Amino acid sequence: MDRYELFYWPGLPGRGEFVRLAFEDAGVPYVDYAKIAPEDGGGVPALQKILAEGRPRPFAPPVLRHGDTLVAHTASILEYLGPRLGLAPDDDARRRAAHQLQLTIADFVLEVHDTHHPIGSALYYEEQREEAKRRAESFRAHRAPKFLGHFERVLEDAGGEHAIGVHSYADLSLFQVMVGLRYAFPRAMARLERDHPRLVALAAAVERRPRIAAYLASDRRAPFNESGLVRRYPELDD
Amino acid sequence: MDRYELFYWPGLPGRGEFVRLAFEDAGVPYVDYAKIAPEDGGGVPALQKILAEGRPRPFAPPVLRHGDTLVAHTASILEYLGPRLGLAPDDDARRRAAHQLQLTIADFVLEVHDTHHPIGSALYYEEQREEAKRRAESFRAHRAPKFLGHFERVLEDAGGEHAIGVHSYADLSLFQVMVGLRYAFPRAMARLERDHPRLVALAAAVERRPRIAAYLASDRRAPFNESGLVRRYPELDD
Repeated sequence: MDRYELFYWPGLPGRGEFVRLAFEDAGVPYVDYAKIAPEDGGGVPALQKILAEGRPRPFAPPVLRHGDTLVAHTASILEYLGPRLGLAPDDDARRRAAHQLQLTIADFVLEVHDTHHPIGSALYYEEQREEAKRRAESFRAHRAPKFLGHFERVLEDAGGEHAIGVHSYADLSLFQVMVGLRYAFPRAMARLERDHPRLVALAAAVERRPRIAAYLASDRRAPFNESGLVRRYPELDD
Repeated sequence: MDRYELFYWPGLPGRGEFVRLAFEDAGVPYVDYAKIAPEDGGGVPALQKILAEGRPRPFAPPVLRHGDTLVAHTASILEYLGPRLGLAPDDDARRRAAHQLQLTIADFVLEVHDTHHPIGSALYYEEQREEAKRRAESFRAHRAPKFLGHFERVLEDAGGEHAIGVHSYADLSLFQVMVGLRYAFPRAMARLERDHPRLVALAAAVERRPRIAAYLASDRRAPFNESGLVRRYPELDD
């Protein structure tokens, strides 16, 4: 059986974490090149090599390699892995529903990132702090409630417990969104969580899953930090 | 046979246009609710109804309905339509390659949008013009060359003529990206096109396809304008 290989930036959870959670929850082994030292064939050089030489050519990480198959974009990787890891139903309709939700999560994650980089990723945060304050204010007032409200209603549509009615990678991703938001915007989230009880319950249920709990307690789980996708700058919070 | 029904904002090409180009190129009829008056069951009320009542619940338009199937997100709609309209190969590997590329196009399109709305879509352009100037500068210097360079190399990987080696919806979408950029940033594009000959040739080849040429000349093709996804503000150009 071909092994699963994940390529992503070392030292931050980022978008790679959505993929890691799927492997960890399924208890399926994977090679995580971000956790391997460059001298042992991992790290940034391994990532740069797959970005340059992988086909179909990936634009950005994460990238999954599985035998001859290469998949880029978090949502596509999860769509590929879902049925293989027992984290998505086999029927087309619910697979599409999970992918649709994951694409909405991807859009939201980009907006979370852009709260600290509203002008561009070519500049440091300190070079766009004033713009970041305005963008984060709009994010906390409009975008975060809009996306979280959507996810809450998706849970309600499906009976409350799971985003697509059964346990799937989408639930794991919603958990990661919630913990990321709590890291970046603890004060705004204290306010917003009150209106999204199903999402709060889902995040708690995922956190209690035995393999996820073990993973979160392990040194494989990279902490959030201020060089990542999700950052805590108190001036961007409520 | 079930008919294809497209729901999108009236009065602008936007993300709906990527879906329209697929139908038009294939010569397959579709109901475009954006082109139907509200009193005849179309327009914004039809869109609002599908956003509220469609399942799986869409976050935003475009939304495709095909019999009992509802699909949201431009890239997912095109993945669904591709094999059905003869605009994607049947084999999994090339279907995934087309979808991967379309997801990168979706990310790029969002960045094009954010040049004029870097702070948030809850505010008017005029309320974020100064930030837009900075973001557009970074976009023209870094992001546009990075994405266009990627697309150029994808064409090169595939032999030069088609993004995934055969005609597909991805080619149509790359055409739409090019004409959108020429509309928004005519001066920057005059500069950037010189470095991307395959992309320029692809856009010209798509424009010459008989059904596309007929569509572009018809009144079904909505012009770009300053309430849309892609806008021309001279102060954001080179």
